[in-house]
Amino acid sequence: VKQEIARFVKLFLNIDVDPEHCLPTVGSMLGGFACFMTINRMYADREGTLFIDPGFPVQKQQCRVLGQSFMSFDVYNYRGPKLREKLLSYLKTGKVSSILYSNPNNPSWICFTEEELKIVGECANEYDVVVIEDLAYFGMDFRKDYSHPGVPPYQPTVAHYTDQYALLISSSKAFSYAGERIGMLVVSDAVWNKKAPDLKRFYASDQVGMALLFGTIYSLSSGTSHSAQYALAAVLKAVNDGKLNFVNEVREYGEKAIIMKKMFTDNGFQIVYDQDLGQPLADGFYFTVSYPGLSGDQLLREFMYYGISAIALATTGSERTEGLRACTSLIQRAEFPVLEKRLKQFHADHPVA
Amino acid sequence: VKQEIARFVKLFLNIDVDPEHCLPTVGSMLGGFACFMTINRMYADREGTLFIDPGFPVQKQQCRVLGQSFMSFDVYNYRGPKLREKLLSYLKTGKVSSILYSNPNNPSWICFTEEELKIVGECANEYDVVVIEDLAYFGMDFRKDYSHPGVPPYQPTVAHYTDQYALLISSSKAFSYAGERIGMLVVSDAVWNKKAPDLKRFYASDQVGMALLFGTIYSLSSGTSHSAQYALAAVLKAVNDGKLNFVNEVREYGEKAIIMKKMFTDNGFQIVYDQDLGQPLADGFYFTVSYPGLSGDQLLREFMYYGISAIALATTGSERTEGLRACTSLIQRAEFPVLEKRLKQFHADHPVA
Repeated sequence: VKQEIARFVKLFLNIDVDPEHCLPTVGSMLGGFACFMTINRMYADREGTLFIDPGFPVQKQQCRVLGQSFMSFDVYNYRGPKLREKLLSYLKTGKVSSILYSNPNNPSWICFTEEELKIVGECANEYDVVVIEDLAYFGMDFRKDYSHPGVPPYQPTVAHYTDQYALLISSSKAFSYAGERIGMLVVSDAVWNKKAPDLKRFYASDQVGMALLFGTIYSLSSGTSHSAQYALAAVLKAVNDGKLNFVNEVREYGEKAIIMKKMFTDNGFQIVYDQDLGQPLADGFYFTVSYPGLSGDQLLREFMYYGISAIALATTGSERTEGLRACTSLIQRAEFPVLEKRLKQFHADHPVA
Repeated sequence: VKQEIARFVKLFLNIDVDPEHCLPTVGSMLGGFACFMTINRMYADREGTLFIDPGFPVQKQQCRVLGQSFMSFDVYNYRGPKLREKLLSYLKTGKVSSILYSNPNNPSWICFTEEELKIVGECANEYDVVVIEDLAYFGMDFRKDYSHPGVPPYQPTVAHYTDQYALLISSSKAFSYAGERIGMLVVSDAVWNKKAPDLKRFYASDQVGMALLFGTIYSLSSGTSHSAQYALAAVLKAVNDGKLNFVNEVREYGEKAIIMKKMFTDNGFQIVYDQDLGQPLADGFYFTVSYPGLSGDQLLREFMYYGISAIALATTGSERTEGLRACTSLIQRAEFPVLEKRLKQFHADHPVA
């Protein structure tokens, strides 16, 4: 499976990583935990991860239960060139050990541009910080077609701009392989081979890769289900060989997003994260909504009466506390009429001034 | 699977635990990690686990990578009533947050008596310490038949003497279900419901069970493979219903141990942990050997030339540094003649004075 993971990142990201540095983990959950646990211990005088929010709240919880502190900001107002200055304001403190974001972004579905990824990479290089890039929704910016192995365009990644990276690639979303608890953790050769003497506080080795593998991952879970490893290897092989177009399998999310967004906006809702640097936002796994006159918490509570579930953006580090995240994966097309009926009822019950 | 785990511990240990407190984990590896991470944080003024050695070295590594300290002693010279005073000498420091041992013991295969388990339980009660009992080799003391559901004798456990326990039950040994990464963590209702305000340093809840489940295990791995959970539930159901005698399936280890031990002792070796409080030691998954005039490290190195593998007892916290641990599981009966030939050659090459 390591070989196929290395092939996958070569063919779909166009990056070269030693297969020994491509690890199957118990979901990206354990991959992220292992990164925080190891990478954030490289330097005793640094404090933890800088989260480019909005993001997956459990990653911050992972830092908390590890006893680590962290920093974060909502990227909404710092898109494009403004991102550099904002990042540097944190990096200059000397307290940042890693930078984490998801791309495409959970929950807002904004996608970083090549320019933004370049800024992140350059800042990481300048301050010797590891970028943990969460590619949970790999290839799912359907505005471009990232589905062909070895052919551009490739899924954008910070790995094109820095060798200081670790990538989290979930298989439950892109490969619809949920519940078997297998994700991929891809560590750049540069990070893997890096020495950080402060690791010796916790590990037998001061080399990041050794500490990560034999110190952290062996102690945590000693790998993940071997059946799931065989299954993932087979899926990846089919994808890498061009026999399975994994993006086509998940394009449905984008199509459902278009229909669902229209249902919401037809009934008085607004899309919160509505633009991607002037471009229309992509349609995919998530989108964000708000309703005039209601906070996110109020809207969430009201939705319960209508049998509509969502999560509040406030929990994701977003400053757009009026917003909720809607997910396109668990709702079936057959349920759309019910959703539409409920949204209409909601709209009728909550007239907009 | 939680229901079947609860039934299993009722039928084979004769203890009552709420099924909600019976968790499938990514092997007992993650179960142990989760215990150390949560239980050892209950009191800020305590320092960590007291290991009754010899034991599985990775559990100490888990404490190390968690940044926790620990204590340990070799139980060889503290069997029977002497155990109480030895335990109390550590507990009196007020620094012990949990006690861990495996029973039957990896690597020595000694088995605690009911008297000893009672001592451990009473000491734990007196000093309000949680006992983490590693039952990796459940039912494998073949001197008694623990294989019949709901019928004595039951697998001995500290849970008969204290309600301050967490049990680690591996499925890779007793149920030969290795590689799928599923073990069981059974937390007593008393420990689960216990409040420890110092947990708030790391968790949203000060209740041990909530911190363990929603803080630790959710952050670590978010469960384990659902296919493996279904499989384990089915195995447990067959065992609980009396349709599968799981002990018979592993009795082979004990029979192989008898033959292998004889091969070793016929060729000048001695059994290191040779007695179980005056009783002959049980035959099972492991046994320990030494050779006159050689340290464990020397013997290990010499064995390499003969194609014999083992681990040094020194790594297990044993004071018997002359010893090695031999394992009966991976060698096939068909390979016995080869082993015997190599041991004979070794003996011939290393004449005992």
